[in-house]
Amino acid sequence: MTSDGPAAAPATDGGLLAPVRAGTRAEALTSDSAWTDAMLAAEAALARAQSRARLIPEAAAELIGRTAAALVVDAAGLARRGRQSANPVVPLVSDLREAVRAAAETAGSPGLPDDPARLVHLGATSQDIMDTAAMLVATRTVGAITADLDTAMRVLAGLAERHRDTVMAARTLGQQAVPTTFGLKAAGWLTGLLRARDRLRALRLPAQYGGAAGTLAALAEHVSTTSAAPGAVSREQAAEAALRVAGFFAEELGLAAPPAPWQAERSVVAELGAALAAVASALGKPATDIVWLAQTEVGEVAESSRGGSSAMPHKRNPALSVLIRSASLQVPAYAQVLGTVGEHERAAGAWQAEWLPLRECLRLTGGAAQTAVELLEGLRVFPDRMLANAGLTGGLLVSERLAVHHGRDAAEEILREGGPLDGEPPDPSGYLGAAPELVDRILAAYRRQT
Amino acid sequence: MTSDGPAAAPATDGGLLAPVRAGTRAEALTSDSAWTDAMLAAEAALARAQSRARLIPEAAAELIGRTAAALVVDAAGLARRGRQSANPVVPLVSDLREAVRAAAETAGSPGLPDDPARLVHLGATSQDIMDTAAMLVATRTVGAITADLDTAMRVLAGLAERHRDTVMAARTLGQQAVPTTFGLKAAGWLTGLLRARDRLRALRLPAQYGGAAGTLAALAEHVSTTSAAPGAVSREQAAEAALRVAGFFAEELGLAAPPAPWQAERSVVAELGAALAAVASALGKPATDIVWLAQTEVGEVAESSRGGSSAMPHKRNPALSVLIRSASLQVPAYAQVLGTVGEHERAAGAWQAEWLPLRECLRLTGGAAQTAVELLEGLRVFPDRMLANAGLTGGLLVSERLAVHHGRDAAEEILREGGPLDGEPPDPSGYLGAAPELVDRILAAYRRQT
Amino acid sequence: MTSDGPAAAPATDGGLLAPVRAGTRAEALTSDSAWTDAMLAAEAALARAQSRARLIPEAAAELIGRTAAALVVDAAGLARRGRQSANPVVPLVSDLREAVRAAAETAGSPGLPDDPARLVHLGATSQDIMDTAAMLVATRTVGAITADLDTAMRVLAGLAERHRDTVMAARTLGQQAVPTTFGLKAAGWLTGLLRARDRLRALRLPAQYGGAAGTLAALAEHVSTTSAAPGAVSREQAAEAALRVAGFFAEELGLAAPPAPWQAERSVVAELGAALAAVASALGKPATDIVWLAQTEVGEVAESSRGGSSAMPHKRNPALSVLIRSASLQVPAYAQVLGTVGEHERAAGAWQAEWLPLRECLRLTGGAAQTAVELLEGLRVFPDRMLANAGLTGGLLVSERLAVHHGRDAAEEILREGGPLDGEPPDPSGYLGAAPELVDRILAAYRRQT
Amino acid sequence: MTSDGPAAAPATDGGLLAPVRAGTRAEALTSDSAWTDAMLAAEAALARAQSRARLIPEAAAELIGRTAAALVVDAAGLARRGRQSANPVVPLVSDLREAVRAAAETAGSPGLPDDPARLVHLGATSQDIMDTAAMLVATRTVGAITADLDTAMRVLAGLAERHRDTVMAARTLGQQAVPTTFGLKAAGWLTGLLRARDRLRALRLPAQYGGAAGTLAALAEHVSTTSAAPGAVSREQAAEAALRVAGFFAEELGLAAPPAPWQAERSVVAELGAALAAVASALGKPATDIVWLAQTEVGEVAESSRGGSSAMPHKRNPALSVLIRSASLQVPAYAQVLGTVGEHERAAGAWQAEWLPLRECLRLTGGAAQTAVELLEGLRVFPDRMLANAGLTGGLLVSERLAVHHGRDAAEEILREGGPLDGEPPDPSGYLGAAPELVDRILAAYRRQT
Repeated sequence: MTSDGPAAAPATDGGLLAPVRAGTRAEALTSDSAWTDAMLAAEAALARAQSRARLIPEAAAELIGRTAAALVVDAAGLARRGRQSANPVVPLVSDLREAVRAAAETAGSPGLPDDPARLVHLGATSQDIMDTAAMLVATRTVGAITADLDTAMRVLAGLAERHRDTVMAARTLGQQAVPTTFGLKAAGWLTGLLRARDRLRALRLPAQYGGAAGTLAALAEHVSTTSAAPGAVSREQAAEAALRVAGFFAEELGLAAPPAPWQAERSVVAELGAALAAVASALGKPATDIVWLAQTEVGEVAESSRGGSSAMPHKRNPALSVLIRSASLQVPAYAQVLGTVGEHERAAGAWQAEWLPLRECLRLTGGAAQTAVELLEGLRVFPDRMLANAGLTGGLLVSERLAVHHGRDAAEEILREGGPLDGEPPDPSGYLGAAPELVDRILAAYRRQT
Repeated sequence: MTSDGPAAAPATDGGLLAPVRAGTRAEALTSDSAWTDAMLAAEAALARAQSRARLIPEAAAELIGRTAAALVVDAAGLARRGRQSANPVVPLVSDLREAVRAAAETAGSPGLPDDPARLVHLGATSQDIMDTAAMLVATRTVGAITADLDTAMRVLAGLAERHRDTVMAARTLGQQAVPTTFGLKAAGWLTGLLRARDRLRALRLPAQYGGAAGTLAALAEHVSTTSAAPGAVSREQAAEAALRVAGFFAEELGLAAPPAPWQAERSVVAELGAALAAVASALGKPATDIVWLAQTEVGEVAESSRGGSSAMPHKRNPALSVLIRSASLQVPAYAQVLGTVGEHERAAGAWQAEWLPLRECLRLTGGAAQTAVELLEGLRVFPDRMLANAGLTGGLLVSERLAVHHGRDAAEEILREGGPLDGEPPDPSGYLGAAPELVDRILAAYRRQT
Repeated sequence: MTSDGPAAAPATDGGLLAPVRAGTRAEALTSDSAWTDAMLAAEAALARAQSRARLIPEAAAELIGRTAAALVVDAAGLARRGRQSANPVVPLVSDLREAVRAAAETAGSPGLPDDPARLVHLGATSQDIMDTAAMLVATRTVGAITADLDTAMRVLAGLAERHRDTVMAARTLGQQAVPTTFGLKAAGWLTGLLRARDRLRALRLPAQYGGAAGTLAALAEHVSTTSAAPGAVSREQAAEAALRVAGFFAEELGLAAPPAPWQAERSVVAELGAALAAVASALGKPATDIVWLAQTEVGEVAESSRGGSSAMPHKRNPALSVLIRSASLQVPAYAQVLGTVGEHERAAGAWQAEWLPLRECLRLTGGAAQTAVELLEGLRVFPDRMLANAGLTGGLLVSERLAVHHGRDAAEEILREGGPLDGEPPDPSGYLGAAPELVDRILAAYRRQT
Repeated sequence: MTSDGPAAAPATDGGLLAPVRAGTRAEALTSDSAWTDAMLAAEAALARAQSRARLIPEAAAELIGRTAAALVVDAAGLARRGRQSANPVVPLVSDLREAVRAAAETAGSPGLPDDPARLVHLGATSQDIMDTAAMLVATRTVGAITADLDTAMRVLAGLAERHRDTVMAARTLGQQAVPTTFGLKAAGWLTGLLRARDRLRALRLPAQYGGAAGTLAALAEHVSTTSAAPGAVSREQAAEAALRVAGFFAEELGLAAPPAPWQAERSVVAELGAALAAVASALGKPATDIVWLAQTEVGEVAESSRGGSSAMPHKRNPALSVLIRSASLQVPAYAQVLGTVGEHERAAGAWQAEWLPLRECLRLTGGAAQTAVELLEGLRVFPDRMLANAGLTGGLLVSERLAVHHGRDAAEEILREGGPLDGEPPDPSGYLGAAPELVDRILAAYRRQT
């Protein structure tokens, strides 16, 4: 307990209420400081892009880049100051300008204009920096998620192969239905991850640079007015120069160059959210199945993790599965917020409402992906128990066979009268259908797509 | 008012509470009877596929197909009877079997087995039919949506071109910001539709055929036991035959053939929902902007529609935009339900919870797309009013220019002191930046993707 | 299959995709025709209220009432015509006016004004009728839901009492934890329903009557201009007369009389949705627990329902629980839409987006409540199986006891070494804590609140 | 930018991406450290309650309380360690036990048992502590929100009174409809806040204490085994003693004492979420209206805030309204997650998924409430502009009057022909209906409920 109460210190939070991401790479990659780093990286890249286009001196771009890299940011203070303008970029730019001014005074100014601070954030608007930073943060986090998905899929492919013929009961509506194999179950999980990973990979996250309302007018104006002979540059030429900068800007950051600024066209963000929700759901599938299979009465798999309880010393909780499920129950709800339609060239609320749910989509999904690797690598599978459970109903598990031979209704009649199942219960491994072949097909598809 | 109260008749509903889709193609394509038609089409295709694989007599497949096509379905009764099994396929199959039995008796049976009704739904489970029917319905509706999007985009491309240089105020947070052109606004709408359309087009909706738990065991069993010499067919051969049927089944229906049954791996449905939500949001963008631009005090555009009011004779409500917005406010919430993770080989609730929100995603989005064509084709644009509004602030609209020349803080100082704006207000068309070029770029991208 | 394809007939839908409500009272009470009935009832009540306030002739009110009661409404046609005005009231009023005109001509007009049709919808706006109709429909459906909840609670109270001391394993994170009783489980379900029922009961659904923008101006104007001596009625007097009508209107319909029109203040609708979502979640709890307890491997309860499968003759699916769960997975998502904030005196989209999700909240929840009665009344409980399962771990279920005696870590050590559990496994019924007393407390609270 | 990259430091976050709550009381009251403080407060209260019931020595309770108050918690470390058990209580209890052990050694042990650390968390489970801490945090935050709502309502009541007769245009579907007064608009906002505040006030947030699965078995066992003569305490007596502790526990914390543990019956949490979403929507209403009214072209109100832009020196953005809207667009989506139904006595995922959305519901709503006070206290209202806008349509605003006099269709005819509006436009203040009286009624209702 802190001695002086909760209000004394700035309220900073980690993963206390979100253990699925506590201490994971995704959490670090999406922290406040990761976000301010990305904002500063965007400002630095903008200056470099403008210098490449010969619109500002190289020395100024270098000074801005150096200063941005060294700037110590008080994220909580920035957040508070950002309330005035409803976003934190305004105070960040102000701090960066001041730091550049100070650095210019210290360093002297070979090759620098009078007031190099004015070249910070040139022709940009807050949204350019927020959106670009979000795309940078997302790109990095998506990269980490993709890597974890690749590992998880490798493990699943191994499980699917190893248990291609391991008989277990398939269950529909909670009831044993017919036999299947654990390999096919694992292959099904793999299919989900593969589709989800492919969606992540197909994303082309773009930089954003359009100025106040997506027309690049301020930069074009800068081009016109700083050209040697005023009036020598036509509007069209200035526009083309500005567009060139937008392209360089994306290049500098390794982001896609969109055909036009997307500040009012938010499908990028909604697609990203939907792709992350798809990953969270795909990860939630094995986690959910494992919770069901690990039940005391089922016992067909177990987590390697301790899964301890604060009260009951014997408990072996499927803690990692539970963590993953906690993410898959949240992410779709957050992703949905990202589809909110806003008005005009920057929405009064809909844009600002994106930031928090986007971050949680990234980090809860990322945490779940990292947790899934841990879960799957340590998963313990108990084929004997699977077989024993498949025999629990004394052959009812293959009663569908009766329906094939006699018709569904006649089969029910037979079962009611205690028919052919009275004798030796049939072997469930004799009723696997194409389960092993389906494993082969899924593995082949997986290998093609790796 | 019905004389005998609401409980007397079966409760059937149209678009009364959803005028955005009332009477639209999407509504018809997703009605209860469209769904039962699709279920019956799936049963017929299954029989044809099995006949192609020489697992059932061609005459039987033909009889099943003919009977399915002629079956008169009481959807409400089916719905009620389906409560017992938590889905409507069980009673539908029962009705179809009875009809086939009756038809066989009537027709005589050259080439038919003793009880051809047993070949109905052979090796299938309810979910095979529900999921496949959903994909058929979705394919048709997505086709209609795509066509409407194509038309809407054509109209938007025309607007963008025509108004490439039509000056208007861009607005951020509800405030006039800097000049833009109406062409760029229309081009932005176009970009959103284009991305959304491409997502729809990229969908490959698959057939579903896996039997009770996705192993095709019952069909494989059928293969084994109906082969001339019992025991002559190995499990592997029977499995391959069953897999072949699954491929034929998809072909017969014009659906994609998935590597394996997806009954427990629902990303197909979630992706479909997300793609439709993306369309709904993309359509919501012009609708939202039009509501704002059509305000009495703004008056820059108007709908051609009557938009009448029951009380106020002078009102010209942007009714079509309102309808579209009503869809875009609902679809993301419904789509989110489609990401619910279920357990095991068929979920006890999560699967059944998909049907209603999937239908509304399809038909609300479809209704919005059709409405958008009507909206955009009739949109009236008032360039004079745009220009007048852009001049409302006496030049403040281009005050950003001051910031370019003097730095942002100095510019604010100048404005506070009533600086250079006292004279003749500057012409907003002189501060368009790259707006016209951005229109060109977007149109070029659009034309490449058509 | 219909011969001429889906587009031929108007697309009407029942519960095919929502078996949880198929054929239930809630479905009938919320059908399109229930809604148009309620709209007409609102129009009739408005005329009666105005007649009570002596603002229109009694004969006119009676004619309007009679005509409204007899009007045959084509809901689908209304829906289509309603697109123009973005709501179906405009065409409905038009039809009612025409019918009144026709009836007046037929009936002759003792006591009727020249054009009694002009007195239809007097001083009202579309939203008055839509909102009031929604509240009428909701009141009736909430009444049906409350009755079903009362029945369900009575059954649960019986179960709780009967099984007050029936030992079973409590389970946390899917693992057996410590013993509890089935009575306490049932009492927990009861607690949830009781809270949810009390929320429903606390709702006071209000009539809506405010005219074009909630000021009652048109009715006040009518008062002023129809008074004997023009100018004899002050604005204040006209306003008070209009407010009196609003009160009468609510009275006539048995709805609450709000302090002011709530057309722009939608918390009524959001509260209703939240209360319904609470019911759906409360019903989802027993349904979910029953699915888990009815698993083949657990077998502690079973539904009485057939729960048949189209493929597997032995299956006894927990179909009713599945239906209820399908509702509880949807309703919270729909209810959420009802919290959308709209602008000004009537929102351009947010209002119209309420209708569909409100209806589904009502009918899915209502269907779930009716289904829950069926589920609980037929629930089969297997105490022997509960006891046997509680003994599965050979006493680990009461290992917490060791922690009480030796401390949690020491207890884990003991367990690891195969300690005191080697002997006779302890009796779980000796470790019930206060479970029976908690049942008593909950039942007492329930009886107080009935 | 931090020199060593994002992964180096623990990822802690403030309000950078949620300026609506940055630096607000609600943010502080819901921080990680507020949560761990509340957990420790729960542990201390549990010991006190057990001491009051004479189940543990007073000295032990005091030692535990003192140690809990002094414990320095590394929330990020706790979060990471909590992954093993899927919640942070297990490591926190371990730290507290260790600290108690150390303190006992230092302090000597007059009146203490051998190992007082074993009395920490006695008879409790992790969920008892998490849920109770959540209710403590919620109670405090709800208190702060209620206070802000009270202030906001006071301001609104003043606005409503002051502008009771200030004429402005009411707007429906974005179009001017009929006249209203700004006082009635403010009174409508007040109504929404009043309902939302009353819902908050009606909440009775309960403590949670039930042990491993809600039966209080461990504490009852402790009672039995620590009584002077073993066997002297009956099960019933032990159960009653345990229930007494549960009552004391709630008392110690100032929370409600529920009839039974609610660990598996989560309606408390869902109700809390729904109540917060109602507040967020109620706050979103004035914020939304203000954004629309503050538009450049409308200009009827303005925020006092700076609302600066990083690019455009002239902009006066409605920044506070935007912040509030960002909250009202998120909270309903988060609240919805709190309605997720879980299985058995503690859900494997659904419980853990509550924590993050509950926190954001609390703090976004709290931030919005505090921001709303700032917004409303500084709101600038421009009656002249309101009147001017109301005259914009040259009298069309009162065209409804024509409909009252001539019937709606005839009125439209008149308008089309340029009828009676050609002359002097009528005064909108002559068509206010009951607007002023409605203000009076709402204010009277408000004053009754304060």
